[in-house]
Amino acid sequence: MATGSIQTTHSNGSDDVDVPDVVVERLPLYVRVLTALAASGIDMVSSEQLGDQLHMTPAQIRKDLSYFGRFGKQGRGYNVAALVNKLKAILGLDRSWNACIVGMGRLGRAIASYPGFAPEGFKIVAAFDTDQSLIGTSVDNLPVRSLSHIRQAVQEDDIAIGIVAVPAVAAQSVIDALVDAGIGAILNYAPVTAHTPDHVKIKNIDPVMSLQSMTYYLKS
Amino acid sequence: MATGSIQTTHSNGSDDVDVPDVVVERLPLYVRVLTALAASGIDMVSSEQLGDQLHMTPAQIRKDLSYFGRFGKQGRGYNVAALVNKLKAILGLDRSWNACIVGMGRLGRAIASYPGFAPEGFKIVAAFDTDQSLIGTSVDNLPVRSLSHIRQAVQEDDIAIGIVAVPAVAAQSVIDALVDAGIGAILNYAPVTAHTPDHVKIKNIDPVMSLQSMTYYLKS
Repeated sequence: MATGSIQTTHSNGSDDVDVPDVVVERLPLYVRVLTALAASGIDMVSSEQLGDQLHMTPAQIRKDLSYFGRFGKQGRGYNVAALVNKLKAILGLDRSWNACIVGMGRLGRAIASYPGFAPEGFKIVAAFDTDQSLIGTSVDNLPVRSLSHIRQAVQEDDIAIGIVAVPAVAAQSVIDALVDAGIGAILNYAPVTAHTPDHVKIKNIDPVMSLQSMTYYLKS
Repeated sequence: MATGSIQTTHSNGSDDVDVPDVVVERLPLYVRVLTALAASGIDMVSSEQLGDQLHMTPAQIRKDLSYFGRFGKQGRGYNVAALVNKLKAILGLDRSWNACIVGMGRLGRAIASYPGFAPEGFKIVAAFDTDQSLIGTSVDNLPVRSLSHIRQAVQEDDIAIGIVAVPAVAAQSVIDALVDAGIGAILNYAPVTAHTPDHVKIKNIDPVMSLQSMTYYLKS
């Protein structure tokens, strides 16, 4: 597994390839870089050029992409449009996904009005809180509902993603409620290390922790 | 380096220990967990208990902490208060840090009003934009200034951290301006893979990319 040219048994890039998590993690970055190249009118790209942009070696690039079929032509590189379309299909980015926000305080409202989600196919279709003074109000045309309606809403509105914007002390119980309701992926803005069962993915958005890991280097 | 009980030559945990980046990355998480334990009235904690909370093995915990001195007592565990104070000092979290935001559109304004920074010692003291219609306005009592004043402001206000909230196309040039102005750490909210010189740290906050790496698992 140490060289860049691996023959997979799944040369059609079908969904049943068992792709390591660390490779899946990198795919959105490939999609972003390839989309920018396509927008610049570039048709073909070499693993060397991709490596430069992604701070990876050409061998790593070739190894990652070998999981999904044989895109590269010897000496010509990768077809940008074909590769980006394939990677988007693999990631499930060739469709849209419905998300809900739990916690419609200051942070939740900022997330609801964040302009970056919709263009990438992530639609925020429901908002929840437990605060009676917020329930019934609207944020960006999104009615705030009682958290007790979450399970019903997840089914009715086909919600796959839960965005958690509640205070730290409430986060784990909200996450448990999302898991119970059938949510498969959670984007957690609460500053806690939360737990989910193995079948539910969770990612943390934690700007304070990002800052805290950089101040070590600022000291000197 | 494979066992959990390493004798360091820096038993006083002084700043000149050469700590791997990957360990520095984890320290804020230790601080958070230990702070929560202290708030619960817990005085001593074992590496096993810390490992449970942090999803790490006790050996990894002991190895990480061995870089900073000898906190653990055989069979008794770590003194929570002493350890959290030491780790905060090592990370530079025993003082406050001044930050500025560049880009005061919708995203920048949401960041400016994010309630999580100040309690952790991160003060947003300046805001910049290039849009003449925004310059001179105020957001949360923060006057929006022209980006051309960045170098002067960084020096006058002792700003160490730059928060980037501009559109993707403008991000690299803004980051270059922050680096030129003497900023040492950048928190980048623009959806780009930006470049900085080695002496300037950068972390990306990218909720869309976090979502995109989870949809792979939602498909099935």
